[in-house]
Amino acid sequence: MKAVVFSDKEGLKLDKNYPKPVPKKGEALIKVKLAGICNTDFEITKGYMGYNGVLGHEFIGIVEDVNDDDKSLIGKRVTAEISYGCDDPNCEWCAVKNYRHCPNRKTLGILDKDGCFAEYVTMPTNVIFEIPDEVEDEQAVFVEPLAAACEITEQLHIQPIQKVAVLGDGKLGLTAALTLHSQNLDVTLIGKHQNKLDIAKNQKVKTQFLQDTKVDNSYDVVVEATGSVSGFETSLGLVKPRGVLVLKSTIATGKELNLAPIVINEITVLGSRCGQFPPALNLLRNGYIDFKPFISGVYSIDDAIEAFEANKRKDTIKILIKF
Amino acid sequence: MKAVVFSDKEGLKLDKNYPKPVPKKGEALIKVKLAGICNTDFEITKGYMGYNGVLGHEFIGIVEDVNDDDKSLIGKRVTAEISYGCDDPNCEWCAVKNYRHCPNRKTLGILDKDGCFAEYVTMPTNVIFEIPDEVEDEQAVFVEPLAAACEITEQLHIQPIQKVAVLGDGKLGLTAALTLHSQNLDVTLIGKHQNKLDIAKNQKVKTQFLQDTKVDNSYDVVVEATGSVSGFETSLGLVKPRGVLVLKSTIATGKELNLAPIVINEITVLGSRCGQFPPALNLLRNGYIDFKPFISGVYSIDDAIEAFEANKRKDTIKILIKF
Repeated sequence: MKAVVFSDKEGLKLDKNYPKPVPKKGEALIKVKLAGICNTDFEITKGYMGYNGVLGHEFIGIVEDVNDDDKSLIGKRVTAEISYGCDDPNCEWCAVKNYRHCPNRKTLGILDKDGCFAEYVTMPTNVIFEIPDEVEDEQAVFVEPLAAACEITEQLHIQPIQKVAVLGDGKLGLTAALTLHSQNLDVTLIGKHQNKLDIAKNQKVKTQFLQDTKVDNSYDVVVEATGSVSGFETSLGLVKPRGVLVLKSTIATGKELNLAPIVINEITVLGSRCGQFPPALNLLRNGYIDFKPFISGVYSIDDAIEAFEANKRKDTIKILIKF
Repeated sequence: MKAVVFSDKEGLKLDKNYPKPVPKKGEALIKVKLAGICNTDFEITKGYMGYNGVLGHEFIGIVEDVNDDDKSLIGKRVTAEISYGCDDPNCEWCAVKNYRHCPNRKTLGILDKDGCFAEYVTMPTNVIFEIPDEVEDEQAVFVEPLAAACEITEQLHIQPIQKVAVLGDGKLGLTAALTLHSQNLDVTLIGKHQNKLDIAKNQKVKTQFLQDTKVDNSYDVVVEATGSVSGFETSLGLVKPRGVLVLKSTIATGKELNLAPIVINEITVLGSRCGQFPPALNLLRNGYIDFKPFISGVYSIDDAIEAFEANKRKDTIKILIKF
């Protein structure tokens, strides 16, 4: 089958004869229909996580087979959470279905598990979710980053009267701002790009340019979504004393970081990663967020390398790969 | 009067003719009896906070005068919280008496206010506290760092069944470990120095050497009290996924810091600074913690420069200055 493979030795390439995966006991075989490129995929091609294998973790597809007695998923349009656990009865994380913190987890296209930029992918049925009929493919393929944005309010109770800022108008920041807004929270998206800010503004989110923003410790909650050291430092300047800075992206190092304001202002820095899919699927079904304006390009799997190049461009938001 | 003064131009010196302070309306004049050197004092001599003036913020003394109608404090043995606010009725921080986050605060010996390494100091009466008679001077002088340790449980609810580690066996780590232990929490102090660990062990705190410690994400709460980048990284390795890392000391920069584990393991990093004095005074009155083993030396104000030199030595815990 065709697959987009990264290895330290050969870099990124389209392999046209990659072996088709065989579902293990409890797994389904899914024919991938549409997939999305995430910045993590790009980071992996620079060495992040030391991962080698098929890339990709955002997808929707149709179940072709299930290696289990219950075959009810066959033919269904589905997506899957990206991490699954050891399912050892003694694992405190798997016991509560929080597979993303299982110390022996596998993560699609990121850790010990071939990803979804391929014609076929396998996943355990306990992390597979049917997509509601009323949700179009081009919206449903955003379920994974949407779930990651829903994770913020799974971890943190934000009150409707609190002021929330999202810093960074890339796909991560846009998704976070739209998601928090969809939960009736008072959110302002702060960024540098008119075209990106407009996507949020057109969906009734307050937006403002970074250059027009007073960095005066006035937000109760700040979501850092730039992934840059300067963004982290600006976030520390935006958040009130005793406020919460939600760290949504791993900060690229390369510059010293001054953590003293965290102590002096008694800031809570809350690391936040992937989320569970049911709340994200609910949001998609409600139709509160329109992801179509995110789509900067749709490439065939045959043009996957070109798609990765397009993903690097500054004005790109989301690149999809279709099969 | 005699005072220990730091300035960028002249460095640290003992000034024997520093002007005696005059209490403003609402302030008391306190004759200092005993004071403690904190690492922050040492950091200031290296440029921290850009502070110039009389150093020192840990002290006890006797009130000699009060510039107010209520003179009841005169003759009392007292101590004072180190920050006081603007007391503007519109200040949200002063309104709740949380002066340490008032944007216009002054902080004793740290920010816009001469410190206590002097024969006399003034402070507003609303941050002055009487010391209970049964508490000796050599215990009472530890009230400020003890309050900073009490701040941890003011900010964070720690359950008695949760595992807590304190990393670093300097005065900060020792105080944090003894304070958390005194609140019936399951705390382990991790350090490198037998003599320092023994101070905690002799007061029934669990201790262990860093070299014997499994860094396997097994603690619910970790208090970072080393102030070093390597200590911060070890703390990230000690804390469980979704656990809390309490940042008690400003991390010395000079090395790149990898914050990715915060996101991947969804750690909460909680900055924690000074604390309110009443809980610390209660603990001192209860006598649950013995600070006398912390005292590495007591110097006369005339030997203050020598006292600062002694504070730098590796085996030193706490140096006191008496008047």
